Amino acid sequence: MLSIYDATIPPLKRILTNLSAILKKAEAYADTKKVEHHVLLNARLFVDMYPLTRQVQIATDMSKGAAARLAGAEIPKYEDNETTFAELQARLAKTIVFLDSIKPEQLVGSETREITIALRNTDLKFSGQDYLLKWVIPNVYFHVTTAYNILRHNGVELGKQDFLGPRN
Amino acid sequence: MLSIYDATIPPLKRILTNLSAILKKAEAYADTKKVEHHVLLNARLFVDMYPLTRQVQIATDMSKGAAARLAGAEIPKYEDNETTFAELQARLAKTIVFLDSIKPEQLVGSETREITIALRNTDLKFSGQDYLLKWVIPNVYFHVTTAYNILRHNGVELGKQDFLGPRN
Repeated sequence: MLSIYDATIPPLKRILTNLSAILKKAEAYADTKKVEHHVLLNARLFVDMYPLTRQVQIATDMSKGAAARLAGAEIPKYEDNETTFAELQARLAKTIVFLDSIKPEQLVGSETREITIALRNTDLKFSGQDYLLKWVIPNVYFHVTTAYNILRHNGVELGKQDFLGPRN
Repeated sequence: MLSIYDATIPPLKRILTNLSAILKKAEAYADTKKVEHHVLLNARLFVDMYPLTRQVQIATDMSKGAAARLAGAEIPKYEDNETTFAELQARLAKTIVFLDSIKPEQLVGSETREITIALRNTDLKFSGQDYLLKWVIPNVYFHVTTAYNILRHNGVELGKQDFLGPRN
């Protein structure tokens, strides 16, 4: 058996920490190439896909939403107005601080908590367990991987170890 | 609390099923555009990234490895010689059959099982829980997302719902 806490908070914290390190490499790459930062921040893999900045925003949204909803806490509100690497780093940092503020006991029993997500046209209802396994985890990894892929496609030197994080 | 089975087998089965549907759309797209299938099968996002076929091979490798190692069963051996959409579909299908063959009781207690992964230069040792959360899940979503991104980048009409699968 796994606790919901162990399956939620440390993995989210870990992948956001890795994303932060990936973005530092991206910023250094832009500087080395003497490219304006907004070129990478607005890069996307196809015309109707989200750019890098939005990928980071969604990965953090999903993470704070998961921690708050499973703990029955209020979801921190962000303004979604980041336009620089520094602002994205600040967003990642405050999300990690929020994840750290959640105590394991707050998530006890949350696997059966009813979770409702309001989408544009519909509400999605999940048990806490389904919310975590079918929504949060795939979505967060999707957006962090897409951020990684946008940067790799633009030549930033990254390897899968940057995505997975330090072996320990 | 979550069972290791619930956190492993249904999510892997779900994402591989979604990948199968995504590849069907990719094949149909190639046919509509009158493009040889190998163009998509060998497409990659950057020169030193793996192409689509390899992404599918790794996602399935990670999945069969996870199910077998956590269950203490033998890992099915594949020849890794797929060169067509039909062969990739067969690989996904047989991986799903293998996941289906694993019984929940085979995974009971596997969170503390010692798992060793032999990499090129080193062995990685994990508890079953860390193997699942720090290795299998991030890796599988990484490779399925990258397959999706390769196809999106090449114009295949997909949305995140194709990645997440049916809402139920």
